[in-house]
Amino acid sequence: MAGKLVAVVMGSKSDWEVMKSCDETLTRFGVPHECRVLSAHRTPEALHKWIRECEQDGVEVFIAAAGGAAHLAGVVAAYTVLPVLGVPMESASLKGLDSLLAMVQMPGGIPVGTLAIGKPGATNAALLAVSILATTRPEYKQKLLDYRAEQERKILAEKLG
Amino acid sequence: MAGKLVAVVMGSKSDWEVMKSCDETLTRFGVPHECRVLSAHRTPEALHKWIRECEQDGVEVFIAAAGGAAHLAGVVAAYTVLPVLGVPMESASLKGLDSLLAMVQMPGGIPVGTLAIGKPGATNAALLAVSILATTRPEYKQKLLDYRAEQERKILAEKLG
Amino acid sequence: MAGKLVAVVMGSKSDWEVMKSCDETLTRFGVPHECRVLSAHRTPEALHKWIRECEQDGVEVFIAAAGGAAHLAGVVAAYTVLPVLGVPMESASLKGLDSLLAMVQMPGGIPVGTLAIGKPGATNAALLAVSILATTRPEYKQKLLDYRAEQERKILAEKLG
Amino acid sequence: MAGKLVAVVMGSKSDWEVMKSCDETLTRFGVPHECRVLSAHRTPEALHKWIRECEQDGVEVFIAAAGGAAHLAGVVAAYTVLPVLGVPMESASLKGLDSLLAMVQMPGGIPVGTLAIGKPGATNAALLAVSILATTRPEYKQKLLDYRAEQERKILAEKLG
Amino acid sequence: MAGKLVAVVMGSKSDWEVMKSCDETLTRFGVPHECRVLSAHRTPEALHKWIRECEQDGVEVFIAAAGGAAHLAGVVAAYTVLPVLGVPMESASLKGLDSLLAMVQMPGGIPVGTLAIGKPGATNAALLAVSILATTRPEYKQKLLDYRAEQERKILAEKLG
Amino acid sequence: MAGKLVAVVMGSKSDWEVMKSCDETLTRFGVPHECRVLSAHRTPEALHKWIRECEQDGVEVFIAAAGGAAHLAGVVAAYTVLPVLGVPMESASLKGLDSLLAMVQMPGGIPVGTLAIGKPGATNAALLAVSILATTRPEYKQKLLDYRAEQERKILAEKLG
Amino acid sequence: MAGKLVAVVMGSKSDWEVMKSCDETLTRFGVPHECRVLSAHRTPEALHKWIRECEQDGVEVFIAAAGGAAHLAGVVAAYTVLPVLGVPMESASLKGLDSLLAMVQMPGGIPVGTLAIGKPGATNAALLAVSILATTRPEYKQKLLDYRAEQERKILAEKLG
Amino acid sequence: MAGKLVAVVMGSKSDWEVMKSCDETLTRFGVPHECRVLSAHRTPEALHKWIRECEQDGVEVFIAAAGGAAHLAGVVAAYTVLPVLGVPMESASLKGLDSLLAMVQMPGGIPVGTLAIGKPGATNAALLAVSILATTRPEYKQKLLDYRAEQERKILAEKLG
Repeated sequence: MAGKLVAVVMGSKSDWEVMKSCDETLTRFGVPHECRVLSAHRTPEALHKWIRECEQDGVEVFIAAAGGAAHLAGVVAAYTVLPVLGVPMESASLKGLDSLLAMVQMPGGIPVGTLAIGKPGATNAALLAVSILATTRPEYKQKLLDYRAEQERKILAEKLG
Repeated sequence: MAGKLVAVVMGSKSDWEVMKSCDETLTRFGVPHECRVLSAHRTPEALHKWIRECEQDGVEVFIAAAGGAAHLAGVVAAYTVLPVLGVPMESASLKGLDSLLAMVQMPGGIPVGTLAIGKPGATNAALLAVSILATTRPEYKQKLLDYRAEQERKILAEKLG
Repeated sequence: MAGKLVAVVMGSKSDWEVMKSCDETLTRFGVPHECRVLSAHRTPEALHKWIRECEQDGVEVFIAAAGGAAHLAGVVAAYTVLPVLGVPMESASLKGLDSLLAMVQMPGGIPVGTLAIGKPGATNAALLAVSILATTRPEYKQKLLDYRAEQERKILAEKLG
Repeated sequence: MAGKLVAVVMGSKSDWEVMKSCDETLTRFGVPHECRVLSAHRTPEALHKWIRECEQDGVEVFIAAAGGAAHLAGVVAAYTVLPVLGVPMESASLKGLDSLLAMVQMPGGIPVGTLAIGKPGATNAALLAVSILATTRPEYKQKLLDYRAEQERKILAEKLG
Repeated sequence: MAGKLVAVVMGSKSDWEVMKSCDETLTRFGVPHECRVLSAHRTPEALHKWIRECEQDGVEVFIAAAGGAAHLAGVVAAYTVLPVLGVPMESASLKGLDSLLAMVQMPGGIPVGTLAIGKPGATNAALLAVSILATTRPEYKQKLLDYRAEQERKILAEKLG
Repeated sequence: MAGKLVAVVMGSKSDWEVMKSCDETLTRFGVPHECRVLSAHRTPEALHKWIRECEQDGVEVFIAAAGGAAHLAGVVAAYTVLPVLGVPMESASLKGLDSLLAMVQMPGGIPVGTLAIGKPGATNAALLAVSILATTRPEYKQKLLDYRAEQERKILAEKLG
Repeated sequence: MAGKLVAVVMGSKSDWEVMKSCDETLTRFGVPHECRVLSAHRTPEALHKWIRECEQDGVEVFIAAAGGAAHLAGVVAAYTVLPVLGVPMESASLKGLDSLLAMVQMPGGIPVGTLAIGKPGATNAALLAVSILATTRPEYKQKLLDYRAEQERKILAEKLG
Repeated sequence: MAGKLVAVVMGSKSDWEVMKSCDETLTRFGVPHECRVLSAHRTPEALHKWIRECEQDGVEVFIAAAGGAAHLAGVVAAYTVLPVLGVPMESASLKGLDSLLAMVQMPGGIPVGTLAIGKPGATNAALLAVSILATTRPEYKQKLLDYRAEQERKILAEKLG
């Protein structure tokens, strides 16, 4: 997919249920992007090759989602100097505490900007990617402001009881 | 400070010892930036005003550091659609687990890209900010590649024993 | 709603299921109060405005409920010197440990009196608000004593097996 | 001590180092108060008796500090319907996580408004007590506003580097 | 119930589902015992009175089960020098980690022998009580040896697949 | 050592610094006892043999202290039906949370009465052992009552400030 | 079962649901093996005897699965110098965090190579056992390479959306 | 270093202080080995190349030590089907809980046999590597038995008090 600005990768197809929210948010903002399943551990070379291709295609932000010993975002960050955002997946036993720590506690030198565990993080990775693209694309900035305004309207319209 | 591209804010002067590492990294990359102490809880209005000024001055990335019930990054993110990066400070009793969770677990809609607890996070927030700026500034990209190459050289030169 | 003494705010309508217990307890004690959905991050200005109005209407206690990076109570406390009580919501992945730490670990200077995670906390925030009102209103004190006596009777009447 | 409005109790003399901060804050606000060492487990009857005396003397708020299996605040709350605030002490091995959970996770029916672990919590318990007293004493309200203003001035005057 | 040797108390009727396992184990070993619902916080005086009565009736071991800020076992231990065993209940949000820490982390001076969270702990509290009684009652010792032998037979008879 | 009533075992000599407190408490109560270093993993057969000897010598209570993957108490409990009390040692990295969980979370069928992490647990294991012995030895019961009275006097004599 | 190379033991039949995955993986690789239920606490002597028999039969790797205070792997490691791999089972309340710490935090001297909590760990224990056998058996090495290649193919064939 | 059987890699020179214990244990057993600093994130290609060379040199076991978001062992395991053992380093803020979870919670398919946090794990990784080599080298088996016997002697010779 030529022209894509954001490249989304997840470690397992089972992450798609949650990462759809990232995909839908990028689509909603009209951001050309691609979503792929690739594993830091099971397909290290295909992952490496895909990162290179994304860079050549003009991708500006990577988003990586993984669970458990969640190395995917860190491995992506090791192979690119583009911004890498990470989404820790809720894991079976430890509910994503493992995924979060394995993603956010990167050593000095190789940053991963980590979002919340699960669906809120999936949505927010997309929004943060848009805000990065928006630093030089005023149309995205306007859309972000509209999105915020809509969130505000929704909350102010809530009725309890 | 006109012309600054990155605005760094911390919740307490005691965070400066750690956040110096962020300041030094931005300086090393030649990124115009400003560091300030402002509190989400004790100076909410000065914080709000400063965010507006930063936006008008052309800031492209915010970095916020706080500890404990670390709300600062979230509050910055509530007031801007620019990318906001968060650095959880090591706290006195819970060693930054509280700071990390209070920063990274943002609800869908308002993202904070969170880095590691303490000094590695302080350095990495600067590097991630540079990588964001670098998406449209090739000179920063080259500096990032040089930085990576230097890291690599250093590690390969390590002698044990 | 003029004459209200307690103002209850929650960060999302999904918190209402749990916070009903707070609302019902205040109603049971005959405390005039209001429940609202407002977000520290998505409606910061509406929140600020509402706090001011509550203060002008004579509110004496605030109760704030939020989950995840639960900043709501802290943000309310930043804008008022009235007592602020916090109820950490059970969050999707970390079950409220994040909400609790993000709420209770406030820095010295801005207190939030935090109750238990979820429904027990929702009930207890109401009871603690009543006990605060009761310091100068003997009728609430009597009702609290009656409530305790009823709790005692109920437990003493439990039959096992 | 007749005329005291706040009664502060801690489970061990070793808590005094931290709880001095509570004592000093109450003194600074001119709040008549008393600090005592009494244990939920080692002096249950003296504790019970002291609570009754405090109530008869006109105390309006209790503050209880304890560490580890920190039952003191809950036991105070079981014997009074006055507002009870709890300060979890940093414990030797688990650094106050045990104290916090043992204090904040009270069952529905018996509330303890819990503050942060250690010194910030000790200060904040005093401030929250003052804010409770202030609901009917305008002079305390003014002092709280002055305190906030001073905090703000201090932070705005911080110089980095 | 005169002649009882073990007194079992739980903080809420909802604990009975789990504590039945304690009751059944004591019954299986033919140990005269009583199970009661009494709360450290909601019925402190009835609890105190019951402990005195149990002591006068010749009870030799107390078992206390509670969840969340689980103070019941500690409060029992404060009122008796008989052995007190504690069973932390699985709590709604934190799954018993709070109950466990609130029970086991007793200060030096007032011991509570704590068992596992939930049903295994309920069974084991009964077994440990029997082993205490058995130090001077050979018939219980024999029953414990038989119980162990039966456990062993069961496991050795397991077939997989 | 013939005539001993309590047998104390620890997994490493480095535990002695903490377990001295157990030894001193037993000595203070005049309880004949023995302290040994034996490891569940490094001396399984010597441990097994020692347990048998203790039983033959008339020991009535075992106390086992260990850290990290603290299996010692569970292994003792597997070889005897006498009451076994466990003291989790503070471990180097995880501060005894590992030791606590590895000791207290025993499966149904094999109980270990677990005390607090570190020194308070060491003291309390001795006290709980005395309370077990006291169920049939009135002189120990009296000493326990005296010990409680002394604790009470000490706390009531504390002066603050 | 003579000729078996891997011996798998689990502490309870309820672990079989998860450990089937270990059994199936060993079968898939054609590794002669045996699966048994034996408990460190309830059948210590049968366990000891079985370990000796396995060693005499030529077993080269042990795999032990247990939950809660998971001592099984450590106890196996205490009785053999063959490699011991551990699989922490997801436990009822603490979701396997207890099992993991009780297994992995072995003291220096007695190693247990620990895998992930639950099913991924069950599969991986089998794979690690195969990789150990493969150090001197080229046919297993080839099968491992084929297995990796198949994993890679599967991931590369995933379609999203 | 030709002829080496074990290859030890750590993510930072600062891990050497701890990993010396691994080096010394391998030396004590006379196992030819090499220790290197290489980073999964900062030198991914040098790491990959080194793994290939080790395989060609006849290495049979890899040991990888890392802290924080400890991906090193997993990345090694992604590039080889030889047994990979991991040693989680104690990290600055979270004391190795992050390192442990980031290492042990590997997804099904790519195993890492994980040892304890810090020095005990460093020693045990060496011992487990020796036990793997020993499955086909009787001289190592004998040394392991001698090592165990020495451990036993040492513990049995400990004197307390």
